[in-house]
Amino acid sequence: MNHFQSLARAFQQIHYLSKTIALLDWDHETYLPAKGVAYRAEQQAYLSGLAHQRLTSSEVGDLIHACESELDELSAEEQANLRCWRRDRDRAVKLPTAFVETFEKRCSLAKSSWAAARKRNQFNLFEQDLSELIRLCREKANHYGYQEHPYDALMDVYEPGITCAQLDPVLDSLKAFIVSFLPTAMERTASVSANFLSGDYPIEGQIALNESVARATGFDMEAGRIDATIHPFCTDLGPQDIRLTTRYDVRDFTVSLYSVLHEVGHGLYEQGLDTRHVGTPLAESVSLGIHESQSRLWENKVGRAPEFWEDWHQEACRHLPTLKALTPQQIALAVNRVSPSLIRVEADEVTYDLHIILRYEMEKALIAGEMEVAEIPSQWNQRFKAMFGLEVPDDAHGCLQDIHWSMGGFGYFPTYTLGNLNSAQLFEAARAHIGPSLNRIEQKSYAPLLGWLQNHVHRHGRLHDPNQLMTLATGRATDPAVHQHYLRARFESLGA
Amino acid sequence: MNHFQSLARAFQQIHYLSKTIALLDWDHETYLPAKGVAYRAEQQAYLSGLAHQRLTSSEVGDLIHACESELDELSAEEQANLRCWRRDRDRAVKLPTAFVETFEKRCSLAKSSWAAARKRNQFNLFEQDLSELIRLCREKANHYGYQEHPYDALMDVYEPGITCAQLDPVLDSLKAFIVSFLPTAMERTASVSANFLSGDYPIEGQIALNESVARATGFDMEAGRIDATIHPFCTDLGPQDIRLTTRYDVRDFTVSLYSVLHEVGHGLYEQGLDTRHVGTPLAESVSLGIHESQSRLWENKVGRAPEFWEDWHQEACRHLPTLKALTPQQIALAVNRVSPSLIRVEADEVTYDLHIILRYEMEKALIAGEMEVAEIPSQWNQRFKAMFGLEVPDDAHGCLQDIHWSMGGFGYFPTYTLGNLNSAQLFEAARAHIGPSLNRIEQKSYAPLLGWLQNHVHRHGRLHDPNQLMTLATGRATDPAVHQHYLRARFESLGA
Repeated sequence: MNHFQSLARAFQQIHYLSKTIALLDWDHETYLPAKGVAYRAEQQAYLSGLAHQRLTSSEVGDLIHACESELDELSAEEQANLRCWRRDRDRAVKLPTAFVETFEKRCSLAKSSWAAARKRNQFNLFEQDLSELIRLCREKANHYGYQEHPYDALMDVYEPGITCAQLDPVLDSLKAFIVSFLPTAMERTASVSANFLSGDYPIEGQIALNESVARATGFDMEAGRIDATIHPFCTDLGPQDIRLTTRYDVRDFTVSLYSVLHEVGHGLYEQGLDTRHVGTPLAESVSLGIHESQSRLWENKVGRAPEFWEDWHQEACRHLPTLKALTPQQIALAVNRVSPSLIRVEADEVTYDLHIILRYEMEKALIAGEMEVAEIPSQWNQRFKAMFGLEVPDDAHGCLQDIHWSMGGFGYFPTYTLGNLNSAQLFEAARAHIGPSLNRIEQKSYAPLLGWLQNHVHRHGRLHDPNQLMTLATGRATDPAVHQHYLRARFESLGA
Repeated sequence: MNHFQSLARAFQQIHYLSKTIALLDWDHETYLPAKGVAYRAEQQAYLSGLAHQRLTSSEVGDLIHACESELDELSAEEQANLRCWRRDRDRAVKLPTAFVETFEKRCSLAKSSWAAARKRNQFNLFEQDLSELIRLCREKANHYGYQEHPYDALMDVYEPGITCAQLDPVLDSLKAFIVSFLPTAMERTASVSANFLSGDYPIEGQIALNESVARATGFDMEAGRIDATIHPFCTDLGPQDIRLTTRYDVRDFTVSLYSVLHEVGHGLYEQGLDTRHVGTPLAESVSLGIHESQSRLWENKVGRAPEFWEDWHQEACRHLPTLKALTPQQIALAVNRVSPSLIRVEADEVTYDLHIILRYEMEKALIAGEMEVAEIPSQWNQRFKAMFGLEVPDDAHGCLQDIHWSMGGFGYFPTYTLGNLNSAQLFEAARAHIGPSLNRIEQKSYAPLLGWLQNHVHRHGRLHDPNQLMTLATGRATDPAVHQHYLRARFESLGA
């Protein structure tokens, strides 16, 4: 084996370990018995330490160095992989293995204390683990290093290169747009009440509809599956093993349908990666801001379009007979109903980003040490009142609603907004290519749209950085104006 | 850390790896998407190689040696762990890591080809993987070494110390007993037909009954769970994470109930191991012959006793109303119906061991190279006809019915018969201690019986070898006569 082959083999083994850790995680969220948590935490910590040791070993460092000195002998694709491996290892060596183990173990425990705190609505059950995780995240930012704000170092893990300095003006203008557009959007959908769709939706019917929609998008159910969890997510446990989760509400089928469409978007990206490159960066997603563009595209641009309900009304009624009482137009209006609300994952498309802005501001303050953990519930409630005009009734509907902090995921939330912006922009570019029927299902398949996304996003893996990818696909880097244009058009068409 | 602590830490890490491999396996059986199999095979092979490398590392070898030279400083428990670690490592070093990886990878692939062959009833789909696994098992026997028969080396993995020379006379006399006792046993239960219990048993009702029975035995559902698979099994994924599986037949509730009771017996053993010793041999099961004694005890000695149906009839009718038409006595008779049949896991208690004897004889011949893989279906069918008097209609009901060969588990089947023998003997000893009510549920709990088993079997882990354990618990080593005595008594009481 030459140096590059030896390096690729080492990274293949690291890939096996990291996908094994992902399975331990998936199982933790789905099927792990309650009393198995403590052992799982130790096990996760050990495996994470092992993967980190491999990545930071001098053997891998020497091989990267050797390949860099033979760059001319490598193909363009090999060079791209080498650049990513260099970047990943350089980042990893900044963290001591003991730190990685401690962090991982704390996350395993915190996921359980968060779930218990959320269930019993008692922030204090989570407070100690959260304090410790914030302390560890600050330590992580210091290990990584940063120019201006420690939060930059944390965001960079999820969205390479992004900084507060870049994001602040984007989010400020987005906030101003939302505040100004909100009354119009609310008025357009004011004819449906909040519980307009509330009814009897047996879970078996929801599962059948969700799976049918998932298959129609092109999601391969032989290379993936859908399970139930508190907090829906998508994880890739291998190149042909993409697992989505959702949650069911027997009174509201939209909770599971739209979370499945969302996670399907993530899943299609994973299934669309180039299988020739399994185990290398060319078969890995490039950033969370691009990942989220895919989920938001299928959830909203496709799934909440009025056309979606024209196409799916008949089949939906077969699985969920309650819907027979409603027209496609009524359902489309109801699933687009705009109104400030408490839960991010159930928020409408207009107010959604306000939830992200709130978290962004609080996370920056927590990481900078400008806010105490004990203050979180009161700070959350005050800020929520100011932004949304709503009283938060309890922490389960406030600061405890999301899993991310329990996973140590500080710096993750802003990628949701980047995803919204990118999703509008990619959808517009696809429409320019395919025509106005791009979100219509033809012969039970969304093949033209999926094909465009595969060609312009999925198959590139980490070949380009996120802004390059956006430029190649759409002609320009992430541009907030397109999202605003999309929202205006969507809500104007609904009113028509 | 002293030498012993360093060694314990190394084995704790090997334990994390082996429980991780067990999760990869469990997931493979339960939830892995079809197309995920190929990657999983590579991943399993890598992790198995890693665990093997750790176990056979010179670091671990040196630590064992250092501890052995300081034996006086160790407690009796530490010395027992050290003896087991020495045995495990000595065995492991006989296999090259590359062999372990090859073996593991072939098993991962063979599990899928076996499942496909069984489903489509085509032996040839499995033939190539099976040939390769038999070749690898022969190679394994040669790596391990043996005195008389290569099959001895394979059985020793599951039942330390057992040999064909010991087993042959036991199985011969058992076969003779079965043949002579069979007509009597058949006559005792002849008043119920084969499909006497056939009816409508919704799966939800089966799940509710099974879980209620499982809880009553003392199985902790917060430290375990029950899923559905083709082939029921029990696996421990951690000290408080014991996973059982079963299969459901809407026309026959006994398939799931008795497989759950069987796997619960395994699960109670795992849950009854001493938690102070997690990650060491003192918290591991001693052999499969002892493990199976626990599953057969709960399945048959408790679950098929006429008293079981007196105790559970009322609750069973609540979950499965079809049963209201039958008396407890009728159900008890039906679940004990003796008749030669095709499927091992559904066999009655009398003919069960004939299935094992058939496999034992074929496995010995295959490993000795005295039978070709291509001959298996015809050999199976001929021998089955001779032993059971039945024509085998197809391979799914013949040589393809069991998963074990696809897991490379040659040498495993005989432990089922040892389990039957041990189970009768332990049950008799427990009865002598507790009295004739030992299999009656009192206040919704089988606590006296479980307590006796925990004290005399579970909590010892690998402190004693199987025959020592049996002697300490029952006054003598495994004695086939007790099983025969038990069968006579059981079927006499049914006729009464």
